[in-house]
Amino acid sequence: MSQAKFIVIEGLEGAGKSTAINAVMETLKQAGVERIKNTREPGGTVLAEKLRTLVKQEHDGEVLQDMTELLLMYAARVQLVENVIKPALESGTWVVGDRHDMSSQAYQGGGRQIAKETMASLKQTTLGDFKPDLTIYLDLDPRVGLERARGRGELDRIEKMDMSFFDRTRERYLEMANADESVMVVNAEQTIDQVAADIKIALRSWMDTL
Amino acid sequence: MSQAKFIVIEGLEGAGKSTAINAVMETLKQAGVERIKNTREPGGTVLAEKLRTLVKQEHDGEVLQDMTELLLMYAARVQLVENVIKPALESGTWVVGDRHDMSSQAYQGGGRQIAKETMASLKQTTLGDFKPDLTIYLDLDPRVGLERARGRGELDRIEKMDMSFFDRTRERYLEMANADESVMVVNAEQTIDQVAADIKIALRSWMDTL
Repeated sequence: MSQAKFIVIEGLEGAGKSTAINAVMETLKQAGVERIKNTREPGGTVLAEKLRTLVKQEHDGEVLQDMTELLLMYAARVQLVENVIKPALESGTWVVGDRHDMSSQAYQGGGRQIAKETMASLKQTTLGDFKPDLTIYLDLDPRVGLERARGRGELDRIEKMDMSFFDRTRERYLEMANADESVMVVNAEQTIDQVAADIKIALRSWMDTL
Repeated sequence: MSQAKFIVIEGLEGAGKSTAINAVMETLKQAGVERIKNTREPGGTVLAEKLRTLVKQEHDGEVLQDMTELLLMYAARVQLVENVIKPALESGTWVVGDRHDMSSQAYQGGGRQIAKETMASLKQTTLGDFKPDLTIYLDLDPRVGLERARGRGELDRIEKMDMSFFDRTRERYLEMANADESVMVVNAEQTIDQVAADIKIALRSWMDTL
């Protein structure tokens, strides 16, 4: 096997990211990958988890500016990439991420409509050319995803946005997926078992090319 | 009197910013300015104060990346500018700031040597064309300033840096002051009374031009 890779799972709420991560882990282990680190964003370091909490909290009714939210996401991401992901990859440990930069592009760029130039500039400033080797994007109608998330009682600040926000987010996800051949799209409206099966097939064929 | 203004006090640790702020407040009141708001950076809103604490804290030994520190400074600044400073100015309240963007340019740009293009790009992305109407920069040899700060028992993470860091920070401060006519330089190695007197004279003459 060649050097360690960074694989990311992306998608809207209720797309089945946990199932997908399990499918990826299983496939990697079957392929003989022994050392794998799981990360989640925002979060994954002591400081990044504190930032995750700050973004989700209320602050005595203070308005959280869209730009502030974006800066906090990138602050958390820089800590995770520099302190965890890069050292893991350099030491030969694969990394499987629950969300990464594509989430900011889709949610803050697409959903909150922060200008594309701003998004691109901030990404370049903070991450440079660092990016996942493979991203698996779980695509589904946000109505289906939110219905699933509601069924699990998961509705935080972000999930209380109106539906057009999620439509714009999905649209940006698809736009990026179509423009970047390191992103695979999986139909996440299928049953959990079928989604897992699709991921395993796609991942195995990708690994055969390494 | 014309519309409300944003006046900022800048300088290294121990430069006498509190004395300077008092001198500014006194001068403004004598000139008939009734509504004045004081701010400090990083900080000045509920969330921004939480970010100030995060930047100064330890996080179980986790390395705080220079870029992360910078992003957190800008996150706090965006909250303060959008939620406090701009609304105050729009309602006719003057704002007197203890530090603003020039501190990031000097400390993170000059001191930590983050590239000028990165600093300029982040500033433009987050603040656009917003800037203080007047900045009073208190210039002194960092050795003099740190000696004063040590005398007060004030040595946090930032003040534990080596001296070359503060030399670079001062150099960037002076470079910016010389390039921007909205920045006045006051010799802060003088006695407190003389510094206060210089500020009052400079501020009065500036206000006469409004």
